Amino acid sequence: MTSVQHGQPAQSTTTREEQQVREVVEGRSHAIEQRDADRLAGCYAPDVVVFDLAPPLRQPAAQVLDPASHRAWFATFEPGIEYGTRDLTVTVGGDVAVAHGLARLAATPRGSAEGFAMWFRLTLCLRRTDGGWLITHEHVSTPFYMDGSFRTAVDLQP
Amino acid sequence: MTSVQHGQPAQSTTTREEQQVREVVEGRSHAIEQRDADRLAGCYAPDVVVFDLAPPLRQPAAQVLDPASHRAWFATFEPGIEYGTRDLTVTVGGDVAVAHGLARLAATPRGSAEGFAMWFRLTLCLRRTDGGWLITHEHVSTPFYMDGSFRTAVDLQP
Repeated sequence: MTSVQHGQPAQSTTTREEQQVREVVEGRSHAIEQRDADRLAGCYAPDVVVFDLAPPLRQPAAQVLDPASHRAWFATFEPGIEYGTRDLTVTVGGDVAVAHGLARLAATPRGSAEGFAMWFRLTLCLRRTDGGWLITHEHVSTPFYMDGSFRTAVDLQP
Repeated sequence: MTSVQHGQPAQSTTTREEQQVREVVEGRSHAIEQRDADRLAGCYAPDVVVFDLAPPLRQPAAQVLDPASHRAWFATFEPGIEYGTRDLTVTVGGDVAVAHGLARLAATPRGSAEGFAMWFRLTLCLRRTDGGWLITHEHVSTPFYMDGSFRTAVDLQP
């Protein structure tokens, strides 16, 4: 009990900040599920660097910050997008935070009768600002089979 | 001049730490180029989480920390591995750091007459320890073509 009463302020502060970061990550997932393009675009810092599932190697920040680009992406799916993360590790150092874990997207391409579900890897870096934590770097990816086929491994389970 | 003389201690400290982090990133690249498996394994923290180019979704930490696994990977190539990074952004917050940028690997598979070169994305998260900065999270990837082919985009140029 004594050690608890003495407290560990740094630890507690970190935990509170970790919670804030987790809320940003969850807010991003919810924005995708709810097709809320404005809220999704609002998760990102002006200088964000995004390494996305699709080419190019880096997405232009202007595109990531533009709700219209997210709206266009949402429009490629039928209603009902599932997006979530698991095994999320969050680390905070000063005004910098990192969150990484696995993510799952399940959706049905517009006009398709059949849906898909895929697991991929998610790394988010964040910066604390006066307006809360913003994402400064996002890296999402699937690995690929090094059997000469260069097939993307979209069939992996955690 | 006055503002310079007054100094910006926080800024200077960050720059020194950023330099330390850049040295770890460069040291990792050199370890790969020099096939130095012990040095490469020594870059990682015991609890490292690695999202690699190849499956599975996550590499077991024990494998990343084992020089033998790196040695086995080096052995899949003929002598002469080129590995480097560019456009590296480094951010430091307390004892946490993030480095992200593009990386290039050029090598010749063992027994092959022809080499390959590919660009991919690199994100490294680090933690400051008594023994220096260690990598706690590594995420390397290529995007894939969303044209139905699920082909990995190993032909992209920065």
